Amino acid sequence: MSYETNMRFKLSVLAIGLQTLIIILFGIFVRYETPHNADPQTNTTLRDDTFIDLYPLFQDVHVMIFVGFGFLMTFLKRYGFSSVGINLLIAALGLQWGTLMQGLWHLHDGKIEINILKMINADFSTATVLISFGAVLGKTSPVQMLIMAILEITVFAGNEHLVGFLGASDVGASMTIHAFGAYFGLAAAAVLYRPSLKDGHVNEGSVYHSDLFAMIGTLFLWMFWPSFNSAIAEHGPPQQMAIINTYFSLAACVLTAYAFSSLLEHNGKLDMVHIQNATLAGGVAVGTCADMNIGPFGAMTIGFIAGIVSTLGFKFLTPIVASKLKIQDTCGVHNLHGLPGILGGTAGVAAAALGAKPGCSPIMQGAALAATFGIAVVGGVLTGFILKLPIWGQPPDPNCYDDSIYWEVPLDEEEPENNYHNEHGKVKIEA
Amino acid sequence: MSYETNMRFKLSVLAIGLQTLIIILFGIFVRYETPHNADPQTNTTLRDDTFIDLYPLFQDVHVMIFVGFGFLMTFLKRYGFSSVGINLLIAALGLQWGTLMQGLWHLHDGKIEINILKMINADFSTATVLISFGAVLGKTSPVQMLIMAILEITVFAGNEHLVGFLGASDVGASMTIHAFGAYFGLAAAAVLYRPSLKDGHVNEGSVYHSDLFAMIGTLFLWMFWPSFNSAIAEHGPPQQMAIINTYFSLAACVLTAYAFSSLLEHNGKLDMVHIQNATLAGGVAVGTCADMNIGPFGAMTIGFIAGIVSTLGFKFLTPIVASKLKIQDTCGVHNLHGLPGILGGTAGVAAAALGAKPGCSPIMQGAALAATFGIAVVGGVLTGFILKLPIWGQPPDPNCYDDSIYWEVPLDEEEPENNYHNEHGKVKIEA
Amino acid sequence: MSYETNMRFKLSVLAIGLQTLIIILFGIFVRYETPHNADPQTNTTLRDDTFIDLYPLFQDVHVMIFVGFGFLMTFLKRYGFSSVGINLLIAALGLQWGTLMQGLWHLHDGKIEINILKMINADFSTATVLISFGAVLGKTSPVQMLIMAILEITVFAGNEHLVGFLGASDVGASMTIHAFGAYFGLAAAAVLYRPSLKDGHVNEGSVYHSDLFAMIGTLFLWMFWPSFNSAIAEHGPPQQMAIINTYFSLAACVLTAYAFSSLLEHNGKLDMVHIQNATLAGGVAVGTCADMNIGPFGAMTIGFIAGIVSTLGFKFLTPIVASKLKIQDTCGVHNLHGLPGILGGTAGVAAAALGAKPGCSPIMQGAALAATFGIAVVGGVLTGFILKLPIWGQPPDPNCYDDSIYWEVPLDEEEPENNYHNEHGKVKIEA
Repeated sequence: MSYETNMRFKLSVLAIGLQTLIIILFGIFVRYETPHNADPQTNTTLRDDTFIDLYPLFQDVHVMIFVGFGFLMTFLKRYGFSSVGINLLIAALGLQWGTLMQGLWHLHDGKIEINILKMINADFSTATVLISFGAVLGKTSPVQMLIMAILEITVFAGNEHLVGFLGASDVGASMTIHAFGAYFGLAAAAVLYRPSLKDGHVNEGSVYHSDLFAMIGTLFLWMFWPSFNSAIAEHGPPQQMAIINTYFSLAACVLTAYAFSSLLEHNGKLDMVHIQNATLAGGVAVGTCADMNIGPFGAMTIGFIAGIVSTLGFKFLTPIVASKLKIQDTCGVHNLHGLPGILGGTAGVAAAALGAKPGCSPIMQGAALAATFGIAVVGGVLTGFILKLPIWGQPPDPNCYDDSIYWEVPLDEEEPENNYHNEHGKVKIEA
Repeated sequence: MSYETNMRFKLSVLAIGLQTLIIILFGIFVRYETPHNADPQTNTTLRDDTFIDLYPLFQDVHVMIFVGFGFLMTFLKRYGFSSVGINLLIAALGLQWGTLMQGLWHLHDGKIEINILKMINADFSTATVLISFGAVLGKTSPVQMLIMAILEITVFAGNEHLVGFLGASDVGASMTIHAFGAYFGLAAAAVLYRPSLKDGHVNEGSVYHSDLFAMIGTLFLWMFWPSFNSAIAEHGPPQQMAIINTYFSLAACVLTAYAFSSLLEHNGKLDMVHIQNATLAGGVAVGTCADMNIGPFGAMTIGFIAGIVSTLGFKFLTPIVASKLKIQDTCGVHNLHGLPGILGGTAGVAAAALGAKPGCSPIMQGAALAATFGIAVVGGVLTGFILKLPIWGQPPDPNCYDDSIYWEVPLDEEEPENNYHNEHGKVKIEA
Repeated sequence: MSYETNMRFKLSVLAIGLQTLIIILFGIFVRYETPHNADPQTNTTLRDDTFIDLYPLFQDVHVMIFVGFGFLMTFLKRYGFSSVGINLLIAALGLQWGTLMQGLWHLHDGKIEINILKMINADFSTATVLISFGAVLGKTSPVQMLIMAILEITVFAGNEHLVGFLGASDVGASMTIHAFGAYFGLAAAAVLYRPSLKDGHVNEGSVYHSDLFAMIGTLFLWMFWPSFNSAIAEHGPPQQMAIINTYFSLAACVLTAYAFSSLLEHNGKLDMVHIQNATLAGGVAVGTCADMNIGPFGAMTIGFIAGIVSTLGFKFLTPIVASKLKIQDTCGVHNLHGLPGILGGTAGVAAAALGAKPGCSPIMQGAALAATFGIAVVGGVLTGFILKLPIWGQPPDPNCYDDSIYWEVPLDEEEPENNYHNEHGKVKIEA
């Protein structure tokens, strides 16, 4: 199949059109939350403190979204510009659209009132798309990703509202962000399956320094995950428990991820793919019950299991998913967000059953997990079919995982060029 | 022209001399602001809370100064050590000198009393020099940059005081930092014009990984800009508005920067220069009216325009400025700080006219913008003439944009060496 | 000597065993500190505010531990995976073990109660091992480092308790972390001396981009050091002084580090080793008296001296320590943590004598410094002998400083491969 990959008018018209539409909608619907328009019964001083108290946690989440997700995906040798650059584009659009889509479910006098929690949630909403981006990384155009951002965040906001309506608790969003983003992306990737890539692609690998760039992403995600899981928790002990639980879950997860990475290779060597990703599974898996009274012991147990499940997933499940289910999951989001997200949702069911959070019902936790999974898959499949239309400038198979199809790449890019020609004996196909 | 570029005694004597002088001045003039020496009428408890409440915002600004500006300039293939290293040197000197120069305008009992606002402002003062550094990057010695830091911060502090005296508002410093730093640097660059570089230089470009390093700078600037624009805002709604406005202005700016980057290339490809820089113009442009009641709608409109103006500037204005005005602007600071700074100042005039901040006069806003521009140009020209003296170890033309003239560079630096020899067929000129 | 370097079962069994043990100990001994189990006489509201107020400082320290230390050591051309990856492994284990070892000295009802100060201290305890890691970097296996982490943190917690028992003040831990970690690591390195490496190793150097990666570590350490030195200081003026003192000490240190780096080379060029390390010595050296009333003047003087001492150490002392004392200090931790740590302890003695902190005795400060030095050396020697047992998978001499012995390294790693073959004419020895 041949595509027209010149995005000159597609990208510019779509981006400017969407931005103009959003500015108009903001003009109609969005205003600051200030003491003036806030509920007069509310303690104004408290609101002021809440904003500045939560602002550091917001900034931690912000770093996770833009540096964490962005650099985590720079492991590919020729796809760093797109990873970090399209990540920025998606997230910048997504946080605006998320403000609208989430805000429409919580209007005050017909208005969306911006406060720090709205900003944190807007950043959260972009995370779903960035997770899905990981599943289709290297095989989509920026235009496709803008469309996915609009569609996925719309569905996400509805599902999130449904989960709240069910009375389920998911403070760190194991279900509503991680499982949702993963299965939405995997469903879309299934529809976008490319048979000619089933034996791999010359660009689908890392070089030494690209793996180090990716570690920047890993570490900022790892360090700030306690903020992610606690940012919207109730002030006081629940928020503190969310921080403590995530801190210890992640620490335990690192040990098992390293152990199993070494154990699974016959020569006992560590695999950067596991270290970059499976070390984070403890943050995903402890999300749902982060603010529950599971004890540091409980949190570490969850992290312990998550590190094992994730590493096993990368080693054994990803090849099966690719060959049997025809899902090409570039970054292995199934192992970092999918499985640990389900693990987190299941842990939430168990914790609710054990009474770890007053008012939480295990049945409703389970219903939320099931609904999230179902809605993500259906949403992802439908989005996949829309993205499959051959008009969005998607890359031809030989140009997958290659920045140069959408970016001006420096000519003196010695290193990857050499690899390409010397090691694989193929001529680069120009767009 | 031939220069003596060995900095062994010039740099060490100047650095130690300046540092010794500063320590003596600190011994005479500087003390902590503590409840003991603070105004007894002031609420001491509040002061304590202010310090720790604003400390996270200070640290965000700190990251912008040292990692943001430092890495943003590492895009050059052979000039990363200087970009991030001389950035550190300038800023470390500048924050000390800025403390003195700004503090002299606000003495208490003949003393400068250090608190968190003084530290934020000290970091701010270094930003002006780092912006100017971008204009002359690759064409100056560390010794010249130390001199520029001393001179520019002295003038900056005076202009900042004048702007305050005029009663103009500039919370995010579109005028006093961004426009000032840009036009000061451009004026100096005009004086330091090097005719032999008018057709470019073999080192004046990026390689693949240097562009990724630069994205570290871009992202930390982008993420923490809401802190920059709000750090010295009035506590409560003004500070919250400054955060919200900057957040949304930057998001809108990303969309238009990507759109115009793609639109301006006939093949529709994105240009890393635009992505690294123009995506930040929304933070600059919303600075002056960040704490004004312009609404999220207003903020996004400013960001929307800034992304377009900045990208157009890189594409069309930079070549004209170089050929007609004889100003070689290495990093394109005119497009990231100059034009968006003027845009921000102008938006401040308009917002003041619309009554977006009580007590703000559009006339005084305009006067502040004009004064800032004039003082920056005059100060930059005078500084340029001082820096032009052939005694500061500046690099000869063939050694511009080359770390190895001032740094021990690893011998096994394969990649850029190869580029230099293979692609350009020239022999490296040793200092 | 020949070693079995396949870590498949050693690493996995040790990591899983330690993690399982820790989870059991956490189940028995560790719980949250909440109003419920906190002392009823304590102001609950204050405790809540303390957690969220200190959380940003905790996160700054967290970034220093994982990104700061991790990337600082990526300067080696072939050892980036290990630097940043084993740093993560050590710190993830260490913060759990540190929670237990430090907590055992401060039980409440037989329990360790987790709060934000416990988390900050847990992170602190890992810093000692990461400093020692710098001394033996490239010459140890991950298994050895896990063992060192367990042993060193156990000794560290005891020494820290002793220092507190003596009534000595060390808020920024110049003595208990920096000097302790350095001399512990140097003592271990002395025992692990490898004669065949005395003339250097082909891998023991940097490439251009590895030096830039290391600057990421340097800058995050530099920027967040005020948080490190103030995180556990008393709320109010002492904490504010700790921030201010560290800020200015570090700034002064940069100037002298640059000055002496240039001065010590006959051609006046700057050396990246100095810039990456000696610029940080001001943070180490001001640690002990950070919360004392030494004045900004005093803080800057300490930083001024530290930058000189550290740079001189790198230039003149490291070669002597290697040749005469047979201590191969890969990262030069003696110059960054050892000497400045002793300088900091000594400054603490002087400040106490001058009455800069009420209740501080110069004699006890001196006793704490001496005890710390002695315990570190004895602990390090004993640990060195345990690590010397030829069963921990340590690398053979030719494979030192080489990731590929413990990591799957991308085959297309052009750059270092070329260097290795072309410049040194040697064939890589496969593990």
